[in-house]
This record gives sequence, C-alpha cells and structure tokens, in this order.
Amino acid sequence: MTNETPTVDFETWAHERARHFEWFAESTMPQPGREPKRLTGAMRYAVLGGGKRIRPLLCYAAGQVTGADPKLLDRAALALELIHGYSLVHDDMPAMDNDTLRRGRPTVHVQYGEATAMLAGDALQSEAFNVLAQAKAPAERVVMLVGTLARAAGVWGMCGGQALDLAMVGGHPGEAELFRMQSMKTGALILASVLMGAQSGEWNRLGDAARGGLAAYAQALGLAFQVVDDILDCTQDTATLGKTAGKDEKDDKPTWVSILGLEGAKARAKSLHDEALAALDMVAADPAVPEKAVARLTEIAHYVVGRSF
Amino acid sequence: MTNETPTVDFETWAHERARHFEWFAESTMPQPGREPKRLTGAMRYAVLGGGKRIRPLLCYAAGQVTGADPKLLDRAALALELIHGYSLVHDDMPAMDNDTLRRGRPTVHVQYGEATAMLAGDALQSEAFNVLAQAKAPAERVVMLVGTLARAAGVWGMCGGQALDLAMVGGHPGEAELFRMQSMKTGALILASVLMGAQSGEWNRLGDAARGGLAAYAQALGLAFQVVDDILDCTQDTATLGKTAGKDEKDDKPTWVSILGLEGAKARAKSLHDEALAALDMVAADPAVPEKAVARLTEIAHYVVGRSF
Repeated sequence: MTNETPTVDFETWAHERARHFEWFAESTMPQPGREPKRLTGAMRYAVLGGGKRIRPLLCYAAGQVTGADPKLLDRAALALELIHGYSLVHDDMPAMDNDTLRRGRPTVHVQYGEATAMLAGDALQSEAFNVLAQAKAPAERVVMLVGTLARAAGVWGMCGGQALDLAMVGGHPGEAELFRMQSMKTGALILASVLMGAQSGEWNRLGDAARGGLAAYAQALGLAFQVVDDILDCTQDTATLGKTAGKDEKDDKPTWVSILGLEGAKARAKSLHDEALAALDMVAADPAVPEKAVARLTEIAHYVVGRSF
Repeated sequence: MTNETPTVDFETWAHERARHFEWFAESTMPQPGREPKRLTGAMRYAVLGGGKRIRPLLCYAAGQVTGADPKLLDRAALALELIHGYSLVHDDMPAMDNDTLRRGRPTVHVQYGEATAMLAGDALQSEAFNVLAQAKAPAERVVMLVGTLARAAGVWGMCGGQALDLAMVGGHPGEAELFRMQSMKTGALILASVLMGAQSGEWNRLGDAARGGLAAYAQALGLAFQVVDDILDCTQDTATLGKTAGKDEKDDKPTWVSILGLEGAKARAKSLHDEALAALDMVAADPAVPEKAVARLTEIAHYVVGRSF
C-alpha cells in the first residue's frame, strides 16, 4: 500500500493512515464556498471533526489481506466514514438521543440547527454512494462495495439497530437482545469496514473459510468495541470522552456494564478479543493470503480492547 | 417492454405501469413481520401509500428510448421512488416543513413518531442503493445508475435544493433563484428518472445530441411539474390535493404563482411544455432511437401540464 513500510509499528501506521485519510476526505468531500454553503459546511463539520477513524483503519488493514487497490480503498474508507458520520448527526438530534456534545464540540444540530443537521445527514449518505460510484475501478468491485455498504447501513443493519435501540430504552433487555441490537447498530458497519477493505482487492480469490474468518473477526471486534465503549462511558469523565459521560445510565439505556457488571464487561471484552484473533487464524491459513497480511487487523484488535484497561 | 402493446393509449399504459410498479415495490421492499417491525412498517407506509408515480413512469418511458432491460428498469424505478419517498418523510417533519397530511393520510412522523420517521427516511435511502446493487445486470450499468441517483439525491441535487428552499422562506427570491432552487430540489430527481431509464438500456449507443435532448426534456418537465404544483396549490382544496392546500402561501414560501401571477404561471407551464417537446425532437432524430420510442415521454409532458388546465 502507498506510503507504507511493513515494518513500522502500529501507532506509526495508524497515525499515517489517519493523516492520509484526513487528506483524502478533506479534498474529496463537497468543497465549501459554493451554495448551499450552510449545508456543505455542516457536512464537513460532521465528518472532518476528528474521531478515531476506526472504520477507515479497519478498511485499510483488511485491504492488505487481498492486495487491495489503494485508490479504491480510499473511497471505501471514506464511504464508510460518511455513513458513520451521518448516523452520528441524526442520532444526536432531539428526536433521537438528544445529545449536545460530540468529539468535544457542539453536535451538528446545536451548531447548525435541526433542519440543516437532518439534511447534512441525508446528503452525507448520498455522498457515500457517490464516492463509490466515481471510483476508477472494475465495475464488479464497485457494485459489490455499494451492496455491502447499503445493506450494512439500512433496515437490517445500522438503521434497524438504532430502531431496536430506541425500542429498548427503559426496558430490561437480556444479553441476547442487547447483542442483537448492537450487532446491527454498530456491528454491521464494522463488519462492512472489514469486508469492503477486502472487497477492494482480490476478494474472489479468498476461500470460504477466509471470508468467514474476516466476518467472524469483524463481528467479535464490533461487539468488543461496544463493550469497551460502555466500560469507558462509566469509568471516564466527559472531558476525556469528548462526549457526555454517564449518559447511557442517565437515559436508562441498557449497557454491557449494567448487564454484566464492570468486571464482567472487562472479562467479556477480553474473550471477544481472543475470539477475534482466533478468527484471523482462519484468514491467515488461506493460501491466497500473503504472509503477515493480517498483522494490522491483529493490532487493531489489541488497540480496541486495550483502551479499556 | 413487458406486458405492453405499443398501441394502448397513455392512460391504459400509465395505469398498467403503475400497477406493475406497485407489485414490484410491494414484493421487493423490506417485508413486514420481522423485527424491527415498526421501522419496516413506516418504510412501507411511506412508499406504498400511493402517489402519482411520476418518477417511475418517466423511468419506464425513457427506457423505451434505449431498449432497456425491463428488470433493471424496475429496480431503477423503485430506487428513484425510494429516494423520493424518503425525501417526503424528512421534509414533512417538524424540523423542516412540519406538514401533517400527505396523500390524504397522516404523514409518517404523525403516524409513527419523529424518531421512527427519521430512521425510516434514512433506511429508505440505503435501500434505494441496495435495490440497484442487487440487480442482475452488467456491472457498468449498475455503477452508472448508482452514480446518477447519488448525485441527484445529494448536496448538489435534492438535499442541496431543500437547503436553498429553507434559506428562502420569508425572503423575496427572484425568478432565477427560485428556478435554481427547484431545479435542484425536485428537478434533479426528475432528471435522474429520465437518465436512469435510458441508462438501463443501450445508453452508450446514444449520441450527445440525444443525451442532451433527454436532459433538456427532463429539465423543462421538472420545472413544469413544479409550476403546475404551485398552480394547483392555490386553486384546489385540501381534499382534492391530498395534502394541505394553500400551505406555501401560509408559510410565506415563494412560488411561481406569487412571482408570475396565476395567468403568468399558466403561460410558463405552457412554454415549458413546448420546450420539453422540442427537446424530444433531438432524441427522436438519433439513428439509434427506434421510431416512436419517445411517444410515452411526449404523453407524460401532456399529462403533467394538462393537470393545471
């Protein structure tokens, strides 16, 4: 991949990838200065405001498994982050979670008003598919990416998960219901990040076991990510989080900590981490996968779970 | 095309196409009965609640120009209507136009609540791109359709037009500004309907003049549609319209009637109708276009403008 020495450590790699992504997103997103300025401003504010860029990182890392085309990978990574960004804008609105702080700044509807926030979210979603459609890449690959992203974002993925989440507030869901909701609400897009990275390369050369391994890795990682978020939500303060701390508890939202307890949640994060690594072994065993191609995916699993300890 | 005798009159053709479309939409959209039921219910309520189906009709009619694959055409038509449907759901919400009646029924947020309405709109947009990605058709065609739809829906199309519309309320825009706003807000998707119909067939065999003619037809028709809507909004009552009559005036929204007067607006509708037909002559002149292939597009122009007289 561009600008990458296989020997750099994870932190350096992740930092370089995130910087590269920021540059690509900044220069590819609708530029400010042309009407409707308020809308392009809100779209850029929503996406270019930092964030961990975990989805782009997963996409870049998974691309190594199939020798992905770097330019297509950039577009897949941006499309994922545009969808993620739009979902945060809409989820933060008063009709949904009614949150006023995100990444240490006022949320989009606080900054730009509700109407513009709604439109910015809508336009970000369109832009995600436009970014894919503009790729100079084999059309079959582009169609696969569009389908993977659309399903992950839609009624049986992220939007459906958010609907289940809303239905759960104030209720007392069990582990299975919480798992189901989260594997849709956040897990579907994490899964798409890994799949789209791999689908930007020689996906057709991967065997079923390797494909299944990538999906299992992503599923475990997505859930681990959520468990860790719940742990952080109740152990860190608002300044460290960059968003309102303790909000889930205040909103009477079920979390992994409320169901498993803090120690139970930590143990669960650890076991999901181990599951993710076991799944990667299936990927590495595929003869079409180059040696050490799963290294960055392994490191991302360490990084995600390591945040909670 | 399926189920079609070229000799049937426009009304019969349009009725058959609309019925076929209803069947395709009903059976292809997310089915009810599986969780999240409230969300799938709201999505189906938004799209399957009738409507003039002008975008699908345009898509089917334009498909005749390039001998489009009927199955791909169904998907293009549905994708367009899903985007149109989502935009109505979001535009009707309190943060935007705050309308409570649509197609003679309560709007989606009135029926299902604001959170579900927002999610239903979001999921309908994802579903539009999913419907295209699932097509069994040459991948190059599918990518072209995705790109056309995404651009029409996004910041330089429908969403951007809605942003300009919001910025205009209470102001006194001139003809040029109103034209610019509407050519984005509603015109972009009308244009996409015609282009996507033609792009579902042998688009690559059309010459530049024919492509330009289709675009010019769509542009004139889209604007005519809006002029006619403004005429109807101030001449018909709520029961006939199926939505709140006189709302634009009450909301202090600029319309073609407020700018040109009622007679001026009628004259404008007539001249746009003539423009649309002149543009179709350019299409019909292309040697790749079969004889009488533009007949349905001609009839749609008569139909759209005829509503106002």
